[in-house]
Amino acid sequence: MTERVREILSGYGADNPGTLTNLARLLNTGRLAGTGKLVILPVDQGFEHGPARSFAPNPPAYDPRYHFELAIEAGCNAYAAPLGFLEAGARDYAGEIPLILKASNHDVTGSEADPSQALTATVEDALRLGCAAVGFTIYPGSTHRMELYEQVRALAAEAKRHGLAVVIWSYPRGSGLSKEGERAIDITGYAAQIAAQLGAHIIKVKLPTAHIEQDAARKVYEQEKIPIDSLTDRVRHIVQCAFNGRRIVIFSGGEFETDESLIGEVRAIQEGGGFGSIVGRNSFQRPRTEAIRLLTSIMNIYGPLRGSA
Amino acid sequence: MTERVREILSGYGADNPGTLTNLARLLNTGRLAGTGKLVILPVDQGFEHGPARSFAPNPPAYDPRYHFELAIEAGCNAYAAPLGFLEAGARDYAGEIPLILKASNHDVTGSEADPSQALTATVEDALRLGCAAVGFTIYPGSTHRMELYEQVRALAAEAKRHGLAVVIWSYPRGSGLSKEGERAIDITGYAAQIAAQLGAHIIKVKLPTAHIEQDAARKVYEQEKIPIDSLTDRVRHIVQCAFNGRRIVIFSGGEFETDESLIGEVRAIQEGGGFGSIVGRNSFQRPRTEAIRLLTSIMNIYGPLRGSA
Amino acid sequence: MTERVREILSGYGADNPGTLTNLARLLNTGRLAGTGKLVILPVDQGFEHGPARSFAPNPPAYDPRYHFELAIEAGCNAYAAPLGFLEAGARDYAGEIPLILKASNHDVTGSEADPSQALTATVEDALRLGCAAVGFTIYPGSTHRMELYEQVRALAAEAKRHGLAVVIWSYPRGSGLSKEGERAIDITGYAAQIAAQLGAHIIKVKLPTAHIEQDAARKVYEQEKIPIDSLTDRVRHIVQCAFNGRRIVIFSGGEFETDESLIGEVRAIQEGGGFGSIVGRNSFQRPRTEAIRLLTSIMNIYGPLRGSA
Amino acid sequence: MTERVREILSGYGADNPGTLTNLARLLNTGRLAGTGKLVILPVDQGFEHGPARSFAPNPPAYDPRYHFELAIEAGCNAYAAPLGFLEAGARDYAGEIPLILKASNHDVTGSEADPSQALTATVEDALRLGCAAVGFTIYPGSTHRMELYEQVRALAAEAKRHGLAVVIWSYPRGSGLSKEGERAIDITGYAAQIAAQLGAHIIKVKLPTAHIEQDAARKVYEQEKIPIDSLTDRVRHIVQCAFNGRRIVIFSGGEFETDESLIGEVRAIQEGGGFGSIVGRNSFQRPRTEAIRLLTSIMNIYGPLRGSA
Amino acid sequence: MTERVREILSGYGADNPGTLTNLARLLNTGRLAGTGKLVILPVDQGFEHGPARSFAPNPPAYDPRYHFELAIEAGCNAYAAPLGFLEAGARDYAGEIPLILKASNHDVTGSEADPSQALTATVEDALRLGCAAVGFTIYPGSTHRMELYEQVRALAAEAKRHGLAVVIWSYPRGSGLSKEGERAIDITGYAAQIAAQLGAHIIKVKLPTAHIEQDAARKVYEQEKIPIDSLTDRVRHIVQCAFNGRRIVIFSGGEFETDESLIGEVRAIQEGGGFGSIVGRNSFQRPRTEAIRLLTSIMNIYGPLRGSA
Repeated sequence: MTERVREILSGYGADNPGTLTNLARLLNTGRLAGTGKLVILPVDQGFEHGPARSFAPNPPAYDPRYHFELAIEAGCNAYAAPLGFLEAGARDYAGEIPLILKASNHDVTGSEADPSQALTATVEDALRLGCAAVGFTIYPGSTHRMELYEQVRALAAEAKRHGLAVVIWSYPRGSGLSKEGERAIDITGYAAQIAAQLGAHIIKVKLPTAHIEQDAARKVYEQEKIPIDSLTDRVRHIVQCAFNGRRIVIFSGGEFETDESLIGEVRAIQEGGGFGSIVGRNSFQRPRTEAIRLLTSIMNIYGPLRGSA
Repeated sequence: MTERVREILSGYGADNPGTLTNLARLLNTGRLAGTGKLVILPVDQGFEHGPARSFAPNPPAYDPRYHFELAIEAGCNAYAAPLGFLEAGARDYAGEIPLILKASNHDVTGSEADPSQALTATVEDALRLGCAAVGFTIYPGSTHRMELYEQVRALAAEAKRHGLAVVIWSYPRGSGLSKEGERAIDITGYAAQIAAQLGAHIIKVKLPTAHIEQDAARKVYEQEKIPIDSLTDRVRHIVQCAFNGRRIVIFSGGEFETDESLIGEVRAIQEGGGFGSIVGRNSFQRPRTEAIRLLTSIMNIYGPLRGSA
Repeated sequence: MTERVREILSGYGADNPGTLTNLARLLNTGRLAGTGKLVILPVDQGFEHGPARSFAPNPPAYDPRYHFELAIEAGCNAYAAPLGFLEAGARDYAGEIPLILKASNHDVTGSEADPSQALTATVEDALRLGCAAVGFTIYPGSTHRMELYEQVRALAAEAKRHGLAVVIWSYPRGSGLSKEGERAIDITGYAAQIAAQLGAHIIKVKLPTAHIEQDAARKVYEQEKIPIDSLTDRVRHIVQCAFNGRRIVIFSGGEFETDESLIGEVRAIQEGGGFGSIVGRNSFQRPRTEAIRLLTSIMNIYGPLRGSA
Repeated sequence: MTERVREILSGYGADNPGTLTNLARLLNTGRLAGTGKLVILPVDQGFEHGPARSFAPNPPAYDPRYHFELAIEAGCNAYAAPLGFLEAGARDYAGEIPLILKASNHDVTGSEADPSQALTATVEDALRLGCAAVGFTIYPGSTHRMELYEQVRALAAEAKRHGLAVVIWSYPRGSGLSKEGERAIDITGYAAQIAAQLGAHIIKVKLPTAHIEQDAARKVYEQEKIPIDSLTDRVRHIVQCAFNGRRIVIFSGGEFETDESLIGEVRAIQEGGGFGSIVGRNSFQRPRTEAIRLLTSIMNIYGPLRGSA
Repeated sequence: MTERVREILSGYGADNPGTLTNLARLLNTGRLAGTGKLVILPVDQGFEHGPARSFAPNPPAYDPRYHFELAIEAGCNAYAAPLGFLEAGARDYAGEIPLILKASNHDVTGSEADPSQALTATVEDALRLGCAAVGFTIYPGSTHRMELYEQVRALAAEAKRHGLAVVIWSYPRGSGLSKEGERAIDITGYAAQIAAQLGAHIIKVKLPTAHIEQDAARKVYEQEKIPIDSLTDRVRHIVQCAFNGRRIVIFSGGEFETDESLIGEVRAIQEGGGFGSIVGRNSFQRPRTEAIRLLTSIMNIYGPLRGSA
C-alpha cells in the first residue's frame, strides 16, 4: 500500500472497511497500481448509443468478452459496463480485474430535451457478480435530475452498507443548459460538486471548456480571477470543486479525437492534478493492438511506477 | 447434451445452475431438441389485441388447452402465455412442455402514442406454475421505456435468483420512432442490444427491414459498409448486436403473411445464424392440422436432428 | 441544564427522550450553550448554488474539513451540510460538534418557476454519521410543495422514531408568489407555521420584510394592527407564528450584507425573541479569522454566558 | 478533543462515525471528560438481586430519578440501567448524561448453577431513549454462554449500524468454574478477551484475584512468568488481554468493601492502565452526599483534569 | 490467472462470479499467488483457548494489529480471525490481505464432552469489513453437530448469495469419538467429506493419524487396501475424501511441534496433493522474525513461483 493510496483513502473516513477495500482494489490494480491514478475502460455505449454506432468500427467489440480482455491486457484499473455485458464475462474473468456495474442507463431510442436514466441493475447483482463498485449517471440540468439524485440516494446507501464503492457519471444535460453549457467550466465544476455531495467515492466528468454558462457564476469567476484559460487550469479547478482533492475525480474526452489531442488532454489532467481517465470509444473502436498502444501511452503519462500489480 | 447446446450455455456464465437447467430444458425439448434452435408458440394476443381478433378465425383457440396441445403436438420448444392462459392448463399438461410466463402485458382498450406494459404476474406465479422462464415486453422508443426497463430490473433479478430464465420481447414503438422505424435495422439491432444489456437470456425481436431510422446510425452503417441488403444479412447483424451470438435471439414475422413468405423468412433466419422463431398468429389462427403442418415445415428448416427428446 | 433550555424542551412533549437529548445537545454546545440561543453554520451552497459561487471567494472552503473546523473553532451550536460534506469529515471530527444532515437538496442547473427538492440522504445515514438532526427544505408557494411536505412526513416520522431532531428550512418560493412575496411578513409567518405544523423541532426562515403578499392576510394585519414596522416587531411576529415561542425558530439574512447590517439584524432577532441565526455565506466566504470574529460578535449579542462548552 | 481521547478512538477503525461520536460522548462527559478514564454508575441490581437487597440500605434509591441525579451530580461519564429505570427518567434528564441501556438481565427468583440472561430491551429502545450505548451481560463458564454470545451478535450488529456503542459485562460464572475461579486472573483475562472478540467497544470485568483456575493456563502463567502478584499487575494483564489497550476495559470491585479498599483498588486500576471503574452498590447504597464524596475521591485518582465540560 | 488457479476454480461451477472472485483473491495473494497453494494465518485462539495461553509466549501478539502485519509481511494468502480482531484492524489494513471472518466460536470456560459453537458474527459484518470469506467450525462426533450443520446452512447460503466464499473448520470431537479417534484417518476423511457436502469452498482439517476409529470403516480400509501408512498417503486420501481434489482442503498440525516436524508435515501435504497449511500457534507464538522465517520455509516447499503478487 503506497503512501499516496493511503492518503487518498484517508478522505473516505465515513466509509466502512469493506468500501475502503474495494477502493483500494481499484487503486491497486493494473499498470497504475499504487500511483493514485486510474484509467478505466467503460463500455456502456451499446446501451447508450446503440450497438452498430458503438461496435461496427471494430467488430470484435460486439463480443462481451472482448472488453474484459482489452481492459486486462491494457492494465486498466477497472472495467465498467451494464448488467448484460458484465454477466456475459464475470465468470470467465473472475478475479482478473475490478468490475464496476453501471446500474443505470439511458438509450437514444427516443429523443428528449431532458434525459433521464433507468435503474437497470441492483446492489445484489453487483455482489453476485463480484463487482468492486456500482455506478450511476446523473444529468444536472435535466428536469429529471431530482429523480436521478434520488436513485443514487437509495442505491448508494445500500451499496455502501454492503462494502461497495459508488461511482457517479455526472453529465450536465437538459433544458436548463445551452449545448455549449454542457461542458462549461462552471457547470462541470458544479456537476462534480453535486456528485460529491451525493456521496460518490469516484466522480466522472467530461473535460470542461472555458465557456461559462451561468451569469451568477461568471461574476464570481471574473471577480476571483479563477484561472480557466488552459485545460490544466480547468482540471485543477474541477479537482478543487470535488472537495479540494479529497474525492477521486476522473475525466473523459469527447467523441472524435486524434490521438495527439487525447494525449494532450491526458497531460493536462496529469498536470492539473486529476486522478485519471476513463477511455471508452477512443479505445474499443480501434483494433486491439492499437488500443493497447494508446492506453499504454496514456498510462505512461500518469504513471511513475511500472510493472506493478 | 449436444455440443451446440453446451456452447450456447457457456455464454451464460453468471447464471446459476438452476437458470442453466431451465435454459437447457428449452433447448432440449421438442423436435429441435439439441440443435440449438427454438420454435416457440406465444399466445398473448388475447390480452394484447382482444379475443375475437385473435381467436375467431379458429374458434377452438378460444380454449386455453388448445394452445398447450398445439405446442406439444407440433414439438415446439416452449409455450409462452399470460398468467390466465397458463393457469388454465398448467396442471393438465404439467411436465409436457416448458412454459414461459409472459409476466407483463399491454392491451388496446386505449390508444396511446407511447405504449407501456403492466406487470401481470409474479416470479412466484412462474414457480408455482412450473415455468422455465418469465417474459417481459419492453418498448424502446416509447416515453415509458425507462419504467419498462425498471420492471425488468426488479423481476429479472428475482427470477434469476430463483433459477428461472428471462425472455425479453424487445419491440421498438412510441413517439421516438417513425412507423417505419419500428422495424428498421438500426433500431432492431439497438432493441436486441438493450434487451441483452438488461440481462435477458433469450431475446425476441421482429425481423428487421433495410430501413435505417437514425441519422447518427446511418452514418456508421454506410461508413462501415455493414451488409443489410438481404434478410439473411440483417439477421446476421442482429445476432451480432445480441452479444455476437452469445445471447439467444429469436425472431417473429409480421401479421399477415403467406406461408411462402414465412418459410422464406425462416430460411433467412437459419442462414443468418438466428436461433429460431416465435410463431403465434400464423399458427393458432388456422386449423390445427394446418398449423402443425406449417410448424413442421419451419422446424424442418432449422433442424438437422429428428426425433430427439 | 439551564432553566431556559429546560423551558424550551418542555415544548416538545410528544417527542421521545432520544429526540430531546439531541435537541439538548444542539442547545448545550458551543459558546451559546445553555442560553437557549443558537448559531448554526450551514454549508449546502456547494450543492444549491455551485462550488465556485460558494467557495471561490475563500478557497480553503472548498475543503470539507474547513467547515467542521470553522464551526468548532467559532463555537457554533451545530454544523449543517449535505451527505457528501458530512461523510468527508464525520470520522475526523466525531464528537466535536452536533451535525445536522441536510437530507434534501436543490441545485440551479435548471431554472424553474416552481422549485422542488430531491431527497439526498436517509435517516440511517444520519445515524451512522452520528448526527443530532436531519434537515429538509420546503418551498411554500411552489406547485411542488405538497410533494415536499410529504417528503418531510415520511422521513421526519422515521427520524423521530430513531431519536433524531428535525429541522425544516422553510423558504417561500414558486409561481404562487411574487418575488417580493418570498420574504413578505405574512408569507414568512405562514412558512414558519407550516414547518411547525409539519412537526419540525427547529424552523429556519429568512428575515421578513414589511411587505404583505396576500390580500386576505393584509386585511387582518391592518385590522388587528399587528406591529410589523421594525425588524424586531417582525421577528416577534414570526416567533408568535411558530407556536408562540414553543418552537425554535432561527433566521438567516440575505446574500450580500455588510457586517453592520448583519449585526443589526442579529440585534433585532435577539430583541424580537428569536432563537438565533444560521450564518452561511456571510461566514465561510471570508478568511477564517474574520469569520471567527464575525461569528463571535454575533454570539456576543445572543449570549449572556461566556466560555461555556 | 484531547489527544488521549483521539488515541483511544483510533482503535475503533471499523466503526462508523456515529458509534465514534457516542464513544466520544462517553469519554468527554463528566469530571473525567477528556482524560480517557471513565467512572460509570450502573444500577441493574433491582433486577439482578431484588429491590430490597439493593435499595433498602438507602431508601431514596428506590426512586429511579435518584440515580440519574447521583450520576449527574457526581460527574460520572455515564449511567447504565435496564429499560424500566431509564424510561422512568430519560425525559426529565434528557441530555444531561450519556445513558447505557442494559439490554439483557438476569434475576435470582430461581437459582441455577448455570445462569443465563434474558434480552429485555431493543436497539430501537436505546435510540428512542437517547442512549449512547447498549449493554449486555455474558457468563463465560455457564452452559448457556453460547446463547449469550449469540444474543450479543444479533443486537450488537444492529446497534453498530445505528451508531450506538456496545458495552459487555463479562462475568465468568457457571458450572464450568469453581467459585474462586469466577475472579481468577486467567478466567478474567479470558472473559475480557471474549468480550473484545465479540466486538465490544467497552468491556466491564471484575477485579481479578491471583488465583489461576485452569491447569492449561497455569502452565503458561508460570512458564512466561506473567506478573500477577499485585492488583496493579493483574489490571495491567487484563488490559493486555483486551487487545493490548485498544479496547476500553473498566473494572468493578466486589460487594462489601470498605472505602479504603475501594480506593486502593482504584489506585491499582489507575496504575495498571485500566480505563476506569464502574461503581454501583458502593455508591447508591449509602446516603447521597457520602456517595458523591466517594465518587469524587475515585475521580480524583483517575483525573488529572478538573472542571472540564 | 494461472492455469492451476483456473482449474481449481472450475470445481465451483454452482457459485456465482462474486464467490469465484473472492476465491481467486485468496488464491492470487501473497507469496504463493497463482500456485494453487495456500498458507493462511488463523488467530482465533484468544477466543478458543484464552489470551494468556495464546499470546503470552509472544506478548506483541496481544495487539490485534500484530497479526495483520505478520500475515502481510509473511506473504500469507489470507488472515482469519473472529469479529473483534478483524474490527480492530480492518480499516488500517484495508485492501492489504484477504480476510476470513471466523463467524462461529467456542471457548473453554466450561468443559463439556460435546462441544458446540456460538455464531458470533454476521454475513453483513463480513461485507462491511471487506472480507473475502466467512468461516465456521463444525464438530463431527459431538451431540451438537446437527445444530452446527444448521448454522452453516443458514449463513453459508446468505454468504454465497452475497458473493463470499465459505470456509469450514471440520474438527471431529465429542462423545461419539475416542480421544484418538479425533484425528483418525477414517474420521478425518469423514469430516472433510461432511464439510464438502455442507457446501464449503475451503475445508480445514487436522493432519490425520493412521488410527482407524470405526469398525465399519476399518473393514473397508483393509479390504480395499487404502494406503494410509505414510502421512503423504493419508493427505492424499483426505484430498480424495474432499471430492477427489475438487474442493480446496488445507491442513493444520498440532499444538507443540518442532520446526523439523512441522516442515516434514508440510512436505507430506505437498507430496500428497494437499492445498496448503493453516499455521496459527506455530507462527504467532514466536518472535516475528522467526515466524516470518518459518512461514517462508513452509511457502518455499509449496511454491514454485516466487516474488509474485
